[in-house]
Amino acid sequence: MKAEILSTGDEIVSGGVNDTNSTWLATNLLAMGIAVERCVVVGDDLDGIGRAIVEATARVDLLLVTGGLGPTSDDLTAEAAAQAGGVDWVMNPEALGSMERFFEKRGWDMAGVNRKQAKLPKGAGVIENSVGTAPGFYLNISGCHCFFMPGVPSEMKVMAPKDVFFRIQNIFDLPCAIASRSFTVFGLPESEVGTRLHDFNLRFPGVRLGFRVDFPLIEVKLSCDDSKGEGAETVLAGAGVFVESTLGRRVISRHGLTMEQEVGRLLLEAGATVAAAESCTGGLVASMLTDVAGSSGYFLFSGVTYTNDAKVRILGVKESTLAGFGAVSEETAREMAQGVRGLTGATYGVSTSGIAGPGGGSDDKPVGTVCIGVAGPGFSWAKRYVFPFDDRGMNKKMFAATALEMLRRRLTPAEGSL
Amino acid sequence: MKAEILSTGDEIVSGGVNDTNSTWLATNLLAMGIAVERCVVVGDDLDGIGRAIVEATARVDLLLVTGGLGPTSDDLTAEAAAQAGGVDWVMNPEALGSMERFFEKRGWDMAGVNRKQAKLPKGAGVIENSVGTAPGFYLNISGCHCFFMPGVPSEMKVMAPKDVFFRIQNIFDLPCAIASRSFTVFGLPESEVGTRLHDFNLRFPGVRLGFRVDFPLIEVKLSCDDSKGEGAETVLAGAGVFVESTLGRRVISRHGLTMEQEVGRLLLEAGATVAAAESCTGGLVASMLTDVAGSSGYFLFSGVTYTNDAKVRILGVKESTLAGFGAVSEETAREMAQGVRGLTGATYGVSTSGIAGPGGGSDDKPVGTVCIGVAGPGFSWAKRYVFPFDDRGMNKKMFAATALEMLRRRLTPAEGSL
Repeated sequence: MKAEILSTGDEIVSGGVNDTNSTWLATNLLAMGIAVERCVVVGDDLDGIGRAIVEATARVDLLLVTGGLGPTSDDLTAEAAAQAGGVDWVMNPEALGSMERFFEKRGWDMAGVNRKQAKLPKGAGVIENSVGTAPGFYLNISGCHCFFMPGVPSEMKVMAPKDVFFRIQNIFDLPCAIASRSFTVFGLPESEVGTRLHDFNLRFPGVRLGFRVDFPLIEVKLSCDDSKGEGAETVLAGAGVFVESTLGRRVISRHGLTMEQEVGRLLLEAGATVAAAESCTGGLVASMLTDVAGSSGYFLFSGVTYTNDAKVRILGVKESTLAGFGAVSEETAREMAQGVRGLTGATYGVSTSGIAGPGGGSDDKPVGTVCIGVAGPGFSWAKRYVFPFDDRGMNKKMFAATALEMLRRRLTPAEGSL
Repeated sequence: MKAEILSTGDEIVSGGVNDTNSTWLATNLLAMGIAVERCVVVGDDLDGIGRAIVEATARVDLLLVTGGLGPTSDDLTAEAAAQAGGVDWVMNPEALGSMERFFEKRGWDMAGVNRKQAKLPKGAGVIENSVGTAPGFYLNISGCHCFFMPGVPSEMKVMAPKDVFFRIQNIFDLPCAIASRSFTVFGLPESEVGTRLHDFNLRFPGVRLGFRVDFPLIEVKLSCDDSKGEGAETVLAGAGVFVESTLGRRVISRHGLTMEQEVGRLLLEAGATVAAAESCTGGLVASMLTDVAGSSGYFLFSGVTYTNDAKVRILGVKESTLAGFGAVSEETAREMAQGVRGLTGATYGVSTSGIAGPGGGSDDKPVGTVCIGVAGPGFSWAKRYVFPFDDRGMNKKMFAATALEMLRRRLTPAEGSL
């Protein structure tokens, strides 16, 4: 079987936003054993969308479409799908009911403009949207199975696993269970991960290997059909051991957890708490930690001390340290970590001080320089790193992830010292 | 004229990495007045790439292709281009010379495998790669002007501005750029923005209206062809006035700035500083503010006080306030804002205390409840909001944006009180 993905939206085709929906869908289809052949992006143009659907349905057996289901005048996908399928574009009572329930549940009034979202190609099957107003739908066009989903990623990513993927498995009689393992890797570029695993397919021919980059983390995903019973799990276990031994301690989770989820898990396991002192990461360490539900069980405080004054008065960094070594120094980072630990009584203090850019760099301390500190029972530690990024956002992410990685290593002493 | 972009690479079509090249190219083409009609991604497959080239060249006048010019066995674009163009795939002496100079300059040995990169379609024009080994090339296929560039973003982003864009401008004798205006909207759902602007296209038939949702912000973008000289700017100005009067103070920037960029601009303009006291936003307010380069000019500190103890000891919130009203209360939010202002000497203090979920809600204070506080010269203010989201990430974003919006309104008194 052949599959394609079509994304619609002026904001994507004009370069305003990256098409992350296609990436996400392709990864999930691959895990189900479906290798996507082509991804297409077209703008909010009735004929353009219609042509793209007609062309794709002539080529492939499965088409996933995202975007253009909203209430505004540039939301044209349902109408284009009707044209492509040669059917009328009509009010769908089931879709309307689904939307009315959505609004009623929230005590909102449904605007007249929203009614347009319930107009679907005649004969389309409604797919309920539990987190947004736009219903999705299914339509068979020229023998190609087409699923239409909202373009808002947070809505699509709920709808697809809930109501689309299992239908695809039924339609194409895919092995009902795919066994998979997911490893999170930090500290290696994608090319290096690829090089180290270059003979994976020769060693484990029955196992699919996929990579997903969520900077600065890389997810290495192994999957295989579970149709042969227990065999799949055994093969996967062997492949997993190979991945872990090849990538070593760059594997930060063998369960696909993010850095902040893994650190949170380890802190809970240890009955420990953490506080942060952040300069260049500007609150990102705290924001990552608190993205995890239940983080109030171990996260106490972060002092985002952008100024030297705040470092001195709130964290207790010595003025002589700042004067002698500068704010971006291992000495300052160490005192920040110690200071926030003392201030809060947390088991661990972590700190960041660096230069995220684009300005503020020097020959001595270029953009990308960061000093990370960790303090805990009976120790304090700091180290300087220089990353090669010019981009402020990338540096903030890399600095914050590195700080959490240093804490993670402390929490897993079996992996060796910092 | 019509244009498309084709990206090649298994890592993209399988979801491993986002196709940022197409986004970047589309943005740059749009600035030159070329609206890309379609972006296509195909894997590293000779026939697949060839078919995509043949199809695109039949549709459009300009095709930009990235990827597949490397030395390995899965780099197939040059061969596919030769097939699509119906010409031989031959060693190109100019390309070979360009590569030899690249290696020589760096004192590297050129591996035999690299020679493959100099094999191009017969008749192709070589485009030098000054930062990598793979030369780009130009080929006219069926009247369509095709430019082939490396897939490594850092190489492509040097080659395109240096040697591709000006050729495109020459070939198509391009007029001036497209004129555009961008408005940032906060506090209305996309459907409501669409309703209010429903007759925009009737009023301004020559102006294109687009929406881009970056939750919780909506960008409203107006654009039109500037080829008629000054007319476009005049028409856009009128359309902009209509958008602003229709959406009122929900328009937070008429220059497409994000919330944190606009707040930063206003603080700099006022010569004012800000400090934050965050509970439920967990550092996100600080992280947003410090995403802006130059934010050290106005951002002093954020205390991410997840615990009551930290709220009392660091921010000076009264224990009686916490005991009497709870951590999630207007009284506590007000004292947090006042406290962080006093602690840091900032012109303004902003605070958040709420329940991001998924747990922790009650009938009285459901998930989605947040109390925002703002303190400044001669005033302090707090208000409770209840948002309808179950999702922790959405709530954090909405809470943080609301806190910054309350500060923004204080900084633009012409728009009315809080």
